[in-house]
Amino acid sequence: MARWVYSFGGGTADGAADMKKLLGGKGANLGEMAKLGLPVPPGFTITTEVCTHYYARGKTYPDQLQSEVAVALAAVENLVGRGFGDPDRPLLVSVRSGAPVSMPGMMDTVLNLGLNSTTVEGLAKGSGDRRFAFDSYRRFIQMFGDVVLEVDHYLFEEALEDMKREREARFDTDLSAADLEELVEQFKTIVQEQTGKPFPETPQDQLWAAIGAVFSSWMTPRAVTYRRLHDISAEMGTAVTVQAMVFGNMGQDCATGVAFTRNPSTGENAYYGEFLVNAQGEDVVAGIRTPQPLTRKMGEEGGNDLPPMEEVLPQSYAELVTLFQKLEGHYRDMQDIEFTIEQGKLYVLQTRTGKRTAQAALKIAVEMANDGLLSREEAVLRVDPASLDQLLHPTLDPKAEKTILTKGLPASPGAVSGKVVFSADMAERRAAASEQVILVRIETSPDDIHGMHAAQGILTSRGGMTSHAAVVARGMGKACVCGAGDLLIDYESRCFYVRGTRVAEGDVITVDGGTGTVMLGRIPTVEPQLSGEFAMLMGWADSMRSLKVRTNAETPLDARTARRFGAEGIGLCRTEHMFFQDDRILAMREMILAEDGPGRTRALSKILPMQRRDFVELFTIMQGLPVTIRLLDPPLHEFLPHEPHEITEVAAAAGVEPKFVKRRLAELTEANPMLGLRGCRLGVLFPEIYEMQARAIFEAAVAVYEKSGETIIPEVMIPLVGMARELELIKNKVEAMAAQVMQESGRELTYLIGTMIELPRAALQASAIASHAAFFSFGTNDLTQMTLGLSRDDSGKFMERYIQDGIFPADPFQTLDQEGVGELIRIAKERGRATRPELKLGICGEHGGDPASVGFCHRIGLDYVSCSPYRVPIARLAAAQAAVRERMN
Amino acid sequence: MARWVYSFGGGTADGAADMKKLLGGKGANLGEMAKLGLPVPPGFTITTEVCTHYYARGKTYPDQLQSEVAVALAAVENLVGRGFGDPDRPLLVSVRSGAPVSMPGMMDTVLNLGLNSTTVEGLAKGSGDRRFAFDSYRRFIQMFGDVVLEVDHYLFEEALEDMKREREARFDTDLSAADLEELVEQFKTIVQEQTGKPFPETPQDQLWAAIGAVFSSWMTPRAVTYRRLHDISAEMGTAVTVQAMVFGNMGQDCATGVAFTRNPSTGENAYYGEFLVNAQGEDVVAGIRTPQPLTRKMGEEGGNDLPPMEEVLPQSYAELVTLFQKLEGHYRDMQDIEFTIEQGKLYVLQTRTGKRTAQAALKIAVEMANDGLLSREEAVLRVDPASLDQLLHPTLDPKAEKTILTKGLPASPGAVSGKVVFSADMAERRAAASEQVILVRIETSPDDIHGMHAAQGILTSRGGMTSHAAVVARGMGKACVCGAGDLLIDYESRCFYVRGTRVAEGDVITVDGGTGTVMLGRIPTVEPQLSGEFAMLMGWADSMRSLKVRTNAETPLDARTARRFGAEGIGLCRTEHMFFQDDRILAMREMILAEDGPGRTRALSKILPMQRRDFVELFTIMQGLPVTIRLLDPPLHEFLPHEPHEITEVAAAAGVEPKFVKRRLAELTEANPMLGLRGCRLGVLFPEIYEMQARAIFEAAVAVYEKSGETIIPEVMIPLVGMARELELIKNKVEAMAAQVMQESGRELTYLIGTMIELPRAALQASAIASHAAFFSFGTNDLTQMTLGLSRDDSGKFMERYIQDGIFPADPFQTLDQEGVGELIRIAKERGRATRPELKLGICGEHGGDPASVGFCHRIGLDYVSCSPYRVPIARLAAAQAAVRERMN
Repeated sequence: MARWVYSFGGGTADGAADMKKLLGGKGANLGEMAKLGLPVPPGFTITTEVCTHYYARGKTYPDQLQSEVAVALAAVENLVGRGFGDPDRPLLVSVRSGAPVSMPGMMDTVLNLGLNSTTVEGLAKGSGDRRFAFDSYRRFIQMFGDVVLEVDHYLFEEALEDMKREREARFDTDLSAADLEELVEQFKTIVQEQTGKPFPETPQDQLWAAIGAVFSSWMTPRAVTYRRLHDISAEMGTAVTVQAMVFGNMGQDCATGVAFTRNPSTGENAYYGEFLVNAQGEDVVAGIRTPQPLTRKMGEEGGNDLPPMEEVLPQSYAELVTLFQKLEGHYRDMQDIEFTIEQGKLYVLQTRTGKRTAQAALKIAVEMANDGLLSREEAVLRVDPASLDQLLHPTLDPKAEKTILTKGLPASPGAVSGKVVFSADMAERRAAASEQVILVRIETSPDDIHGMHAAQGILTSRGGMTSHAAVVARGMGKACVCGAGDLLIDYESRCFYVRGTRVAEGDVITVDGGTGTVMLGRIPTVEPQLSGEFAMLMGWADSMRSLKVRTNAETPLDARTARRFGAEGIGLCRTEHMFFQDDRILAMREMILAEDGPGRTRALSKILPMQRRDFVELFTIMQGLPVTIRLLDPPLHEFLPHEPHEITEVAAAAGVEPKFVKRRLAELTEANPMLGLRGCRLGVLFPEIYEMQARAIFEAAVAVYEKSGETIIPEVMIPLVGMARELELIKNKVEAMAAQVMQESGRELTYLIGTMIELPRAALQASAIASHAAFFSFGTNDLTQMTLGLSRDDSGKFMERYIQDGIFPADPFQTLDQEGVGELIRIAKERGRATRPELKLGICGEHGGDPASVGFCHRIGLDYVSCSPYRVPIARLAAAQAAVRERMN
Repeated sequence: MARWVYSFGGGTADGAADMKKLLGGKGANLGEMAKLGLPVPPGFTITTEVCTHYYARGKTYPDQLQSEVAVALAAVENLVGRGFGDPDRPLLVSVRSGAPVSMPGMMDTVLNLGLNSTTVEGLAKGSGDRRFAFDSYRRFIQMFGDVVLEVDHYLFEEALEDMKREREARFDTDLSAADLEELVEQFKTIVQEQTGKPFPETPQDQLWAAIGAVFSSWMTPRAVTYRRLHDISAEMGTAVTVQAMVFGNMGQDCATGVAFTRNPSTGENAYYGEFLVNAQGEDVVAGIRTPQPLTRKMGEEGGNDLPPMEEVLPQSYAELVTLFQKLEGHYRDMQDIEFTIEQGKLYVLQTRTGKRTAQAALKIAVEMANDGLLSREEAVLRVDPASLDQLLHPTLDPKAEKTILTKGLPASPGAVSGKVVFSADMAERRAAASEQVILVRIETSPDDIHGMHAAQGILTSRGGMTSHAAVVARGMGKACVCGAGDLLIDYESRCFYVRGTRVAEGDVITVDGGTGTVMLGRIPTVEPQLSGEFAMLMGWADSMRSLKVRTNAETPLDARTARRFGAEGIGLCRTEHMFFQDDRILAMREMILAEDGPGRTRALSKILPMQRRDFVELFTIMQGLPVTIRLLDPPLHEFLPHEPHEITEVAAAAGVEPKFVKRRLAELTEANPMLGLRGCRLGVLFPEIYEMQARAIFEAAVAVYEKSGETIIPEVMIPLVGMARELELIKNKVEAMAAQVMQESGRELTYLIGTMIELPRAALQASAIASHAAFFSFGTNDLTQMTLGLSRDDSGKFMERYIQDGIFPADPFQTLDQEGVGELIRIAKERGRATRPELKLGICGEHGGDPASVGFCHRIGLDYVSCSPYRVPIARLAAAQAAVRERMN
């Protein structure tokens, strides 16, 4: 025979944590806690099978339910020493819904059920606080009226407001016990008027009405929609948990508080928490009374000299400490506990894994592993990779005062201050004079790179988390706040406005790229201290992961930073960034303005020695680790000036008429540059460019070998390949150049030629393309743009709305769209490896530093991910977690 | 024992057409012709197995080869009554390479082999033309020297030019026999100097050297590359064909000519051709002598009163007629025949399927089928669907004189004349005054639609075959020449220049969109006459095809045209074109400038009645056939003005400041509009727009039903869906609107909601999307752009180069990229139908009118294609051909 009711309390329980399906999440957890011997307020859970029965049998209950509930309720009465409906010592209960998966949209909770015109007097007497008793009663009627009787909650609120206006009360707390007693009567009248029936007086009627309301809420349209959207089966059903209410405000032997088993801010292994004598849980939060510390140590460190719990309630404190040990032993993690002491008796209302800072997470995980409480694998799983970001960048001094100007998107972490400048040139000029500057632009373009390099931080009024400014800033490890829409930038008068405040060039601001905050003036920051726990945990992680982690880097600074953070090579060196430097952009423009191949070759020959020097430097820093160099990718018009005075300048430098520059600019202008003449298409049309780059790479490899004896195996990457033939054509040219350099230098060279997979067609045709490629690097930024038909620069306008509406689970430029883009990566991997089993596979988009995306890359069997230097530790940890999770399954 | 040599001639042959692998294409065809009893000049073929042997055994020949060649050569001598090396009646031969598949990059042909200092005298005597004999000899040395001895052909050409300069000869023909005799000696000296050996004198040496050269040419780098690119195995080898030369210039009983078994221009079943007495084949082409007609009838009709062959050479003519009948009976198609009569003896040098006009192809196919020579299926296969385009549009009078200004791309067929105008407004103004105009623009944008409608034709200096101008013009059935790069358009002074010629506004030009030609002045045109054969063949085609053909149409004119051409519904009605009309664009702009939903709704309510009227008209024309309506697709900034004076105008009309319009324009401007805020993204952000459109559609369906009793089943198409949830959200809104209209009108409505598949992600996620879609229409234009990462508007610059370099086999915007885009369509079909087996599938891009792409759509099992009205017959025929081919396999 089925059993419909599961009891818990008094150090035992019928249910347990693994019975979520039958008891719902809440019921199972309460069972687990009780079974653990935790003093939870006793209660019982009506199973999800009753819900199923209810809907299968025309909204009726199983025959035995009533008697099982009666037995369970009697047990509760017995355990707490109160009676349901008892006028002197009334038992009050909470009634909650609880499905196997957490589900908003259903009836949540009714508290204080069991109050009526007689029991309220018992409560008043027991607590010695008539006001509290009637406030509890009016809250109960309001809550029950709203969620069980479906009376519009607005009516209750209005009555309360009217009462406050009459009594000239500012807060609810200004109303007296008598006022509340009167309000109770008004609320009962509202219920009578709205439902045509009096408010239920007997606790039994209240209880069954509440149980019925929970089951009915399973099929409300809101709940049905929610289930449909989240693929939850309606057959699952909900459980109902009925639990005794306990009160921390029944005298000086009562208290309520919140405790952590360790310090959630630093991770220190010391008890941590606050409590209030003779108070309700909400009083701790309300801030009317200052809570007292749990321990003497905590009081001293926090400057709180109120008597700590270990002195005030030593016995309850001792019980709590025993619980702490039991809980950490059981849950093997730092716990966050809500407790109440009712007349000397300790109750645990809730225990859950405590939230913590990144620093605390690291410390706790490492210490628990070192103490043998966790395995190292578990410790590695305990730290959120994304949170490491907090540890690597300087942060604002939390104690400093701040005048917040506005908020934008937290695009690249780090807190920096500097003088406002509005152009890249000005940024460079002031930086050269040793000033710290913040570059403020509506948005940035590749023309601004030198200014971004020179600035401490970047602030834009337009663009999303993956706009040019954001991506480049993250790549540089520069603080950046993007898309601060409140900013009205006036380039002409060199100032910006934020709702009335005017900030002029030269004024100092502080931007916090970790939170998106923009502040007036200089806010002091604190430098990150990488703890010994950090190194230890990362070491463990490295020993567990199989996925390699490389970095996206093209400057020596980036390359060195990435090496320091553990990068195992360069996965993406974007050569175009090297062309924007002052001494090269001129030659680059001369190349673009050239009429023919020889003209281009002449201009390129000026860039060759500089480009070779770049590679020599990178190869030297990377000490034989793999370096993947992407040949020129962006459309040529990105290198030409757009402002009239710049055009005149460039024309003069190139010895041509300005109108010629304008014509060339017009010729090169594109409706959709993302889909235009770029990537390997440049290599096909202007073979001289890639030939120069290939020469620079191979000559650099020879030079480094000759100097240091280090053998460099450059990986030459051809971007934007869509057709196998494109790759073949260019590969032939690069190979010819390698042969030529070998002949000229008399040195043997080993090198790989591969391609970026960033067009859907390339993924689909991976089999043909792999026959010409030694490696594939998935350029997931562009692959996402093409697969979703979504411009990274333009989608900021509606991305937020799309995430709100549940269309995107997350910004697909931050977290890989596994169903769409990921499917193409899977296809490319299978087809590519079918042609060439040893094909090396990696990704080099922004996603290489996103933990969820890194996990995906591990699962589908890529060889490496490549990400910006500051994300290397994140990727290392995420890769380890993916490997550990895989072994666990 | 292997046989190495296959003979042909004298009414018999060892080989036949099905022996291509052994004898190469040429050898097999000659064998077939000889076997058919055609009097081909006799000869023999050395098999491809000799080639294989040659390379397998260190470039040696099989033992028997020499003797087999000797036997075969003797047979040839016997058949033609001449001797190889005979000083009086010398046999001359041609030596040709011939692989099983045609392969440029190999040695092609050596003619007149067998000539030396003695046989040249025999040839001179036999022909009575010493000049001819020595000209043949010097040509032989030149050809043999170049392709067999690898002497730089430039040296021979230089010697010839020097001789002409000395003799003050303008043409080769101005040189005398003596000059040529001297030239022969010079040529021999060149060979001696370059090769260190004298030019081979004995015919046997010449023959074996030529045979060796053919086999060697199989492995030249050019041939190897060609094979690699075209996936041809090197093991295939090449054959060598040696064939007797025959001469039509050995007297008055000699002749040479070209004949067709039917009229290739009209298709009339009447012999057709030209010949010259005592002449060589090249004389017919050279145009020095006027050729004579084959028949009396032809002479009369063509106004050629020279005596026809049936009078001059009645016996040879009779033989030719017998051959004609034999050939058509055998090949079952109109043949194009080259013949030579040597001293009364008729030789057929070549017969092949004759090229013909579209009109002739139709007539021939239909008549042959009616005569039982072909099945109807075969007849349907005989007409190139693309050629039908020639029949549907007016064409230039071929007899008119033309001053050609320039050529551009043949973007949309039709030949039209009109006055040049440079703006859409001017086009409209002049058209309103009943003038015919040609709209000339650098490129067009949606702003120009009204001008394109008003103009007779469109000419642009920029943009490819699928630029905005081209696509819209084809959609409208307007003549259009695009990307005429020679045009320098000066909007300010209202004129354009073409290499010195200035054409001002108001000057008349003619554009021929079928050829891309632009001409000065008005050229008379001829209207197309759709023949009875057209209707008959299309009727047969319709009975054979399973793929439905719909049209892309949004104007009543287009819809009517398409119905006339046999469209079975509208596959794509682009509603945005309806918003550009003068009375609507204002309301549209007001909508875009509105601050909130209610503001947008107010503006849209002005458009609603007009939009409803549009649909009523379309539904009425389509008489219950399916009509697929795509909700608003383009980005909103396309509807805003960009010129300062227009901005002022719009601001005034909308009652706002110009700077507000500018700000909105700036907000809406996108880096990559193709990947921006458009399609269903508009529907998600501004639900009012789609709600208005849905209302217009449903109300129109009700109105048509109430008026005519016709039940309309509108197909509402949501564009640019990438995530199933987008479709779901919008579908809910459209369904709600349908319910509302049903309630308001009291009428039941049947309708379908589906989506365009135009993002790679949509194809990959077809399974999820299909759960919300009743149909998929593949938007192959955008799908191609996204899959290939290639902008239709920007790729024109390098498309030609890409096709030249063999990267694209064809412009992927014209012919579907089956490997990439086609793969996604296949995936979407499989996954979509797995979810919803009855899912309706079609395509509605430009590819719907491309025969190869239509074939693909049939093969993978789509339900329909949709194309511009003028392409409907093309798609119908192509669909029939695909079905017939499938049944044949």
